[in-house]
Amino acid sequence: MPKLWTETIDAHRAAVRDAALNAMAALVAERGLVALTMSQIAERAGVGRATLYKYFPDAQAVLTAWHERQITDHLDRLTAAADPAEPAVVRLRAALRAFAEIQHHSARHHGGELAALLHRGEHVDRARHRLREFVENLITEAARDGDVRDDVAAGELAGYCLHALTAAGTADSPDAVHRLVTVTLAGLSAPPPRP
Amino acid sequence: MPKLWTETIDAHRAAVRDAALNAMAALVAERGLVALTMSQIAERAGVGRATLYKYFPDAQAVLTAWHERQITDHLDRLTAAADPAEPAVVRLRAALRAFAEIQHHSARHHGGELAALLHRGEHVDRARHRLREFVENLITEAARDGDVRDDVAAGELAGYCLHALTAAGTADSPDAVHRLVTVTLAGLSAPPPRP
Repeated sequence: MPKLWTETIDAHRAAVRDAALNAMAALVAERGLVALTMSQIAERAGVGRATLYKYFPDAQAVLTAWHERQITDHLDRLTAAADPAEPAVVRLRAALRAFAEIQHHSARHHGGELAALLHRGEHVDRARHRLREFVENLITEAARDGDVRDDVAAGELAGYCLHALTAAGTADSPDAVHRLVTVTLAGLSAPPPRP
Repeated sequence: MPKLWTETIDAHRAAVRDAALNAMAALVAERGLVALTMSQIAERAGVGRATLYKYFPDAQAVLTAWHERQITDHLDRLTAAADPAEPAVVRLRAALRAFAEIQHHSARHHGGELAALLHRGEHVDRARHRLREFVENLITEAARDGDVRDDVAAGELAGYCLHALTAAGTADSPDAVHRLVTVTLAGLSAPPPRP
């Protein structure tokens, strides 16, 4: 098979896959998870039901694939938020702000039902691990610069940050999200020297 | 019906109910949620199956009742942790430490599966609201004393604390839990005056 042809097929496959995931997300947003069927997803995606079954065995698989795509996108955004030329603490602040904004946005758009169902499973564990490692590395670097407390291990501080920032899911406004980031970062500050 | 007799019946009912809830918790800890049946719960609780059905319509109802009992116990512990003679910031610290310890303990003993299933529903919303209000009031008082930052609303700070402290669920040790409480409280400190 000539290379061009393969590329076209690959692009087509990716397009069908994306259409299915978008359709799934739209349907869940409109109707909730209760009645999510393969027929509905296929119809909304504009592909035949038989075609959809070539890509996904069932609606749950579409949901999981969609969630994986979301997580990957989010991790990419977090990494992109940090300008490598800046000091670690500035990159950390940018990444944590991006994370908080994603939490805020996701909670408003996909709701608790979806989250409760999805925030489990192997793909989530992997993503969570990557995320935690990314934040942990920034904290380690910032602590070395003296910009973050070094009396608590970077891994523990990363866990603290990521949990604290999930409060953005219930924040009332973008301003409240920014205040949350400020407060969370204050927890990371080096403790003042005791008199 | 004489009063004593009623009291005996009430006590008996409470005992059966408690036995059922304890049995449920023991079974879940041993086997997970998958195969939780009314027969198993009845057997473990030492009551007949028919009796159990007089108290609970199904295993899910036992689970929900158990969770309600847990939450009430936890809220009582949090309230008790705060000595009313102490300043607000000391009571806040005690309550947050108790909350973090409960998170740590619960995650180790009941696991994520149970939590994901239970942390929804009306009874949880009510309890969460009470908890948040309790912490918010302590923060308001401590801010008035000048011990907690007043540039962010007490309600937002309460949300921050409670989310940050859920990280105790993944903490490695009681020491790590205490460090988490210290870091979280540092986020609440009044920001240093700008030069």
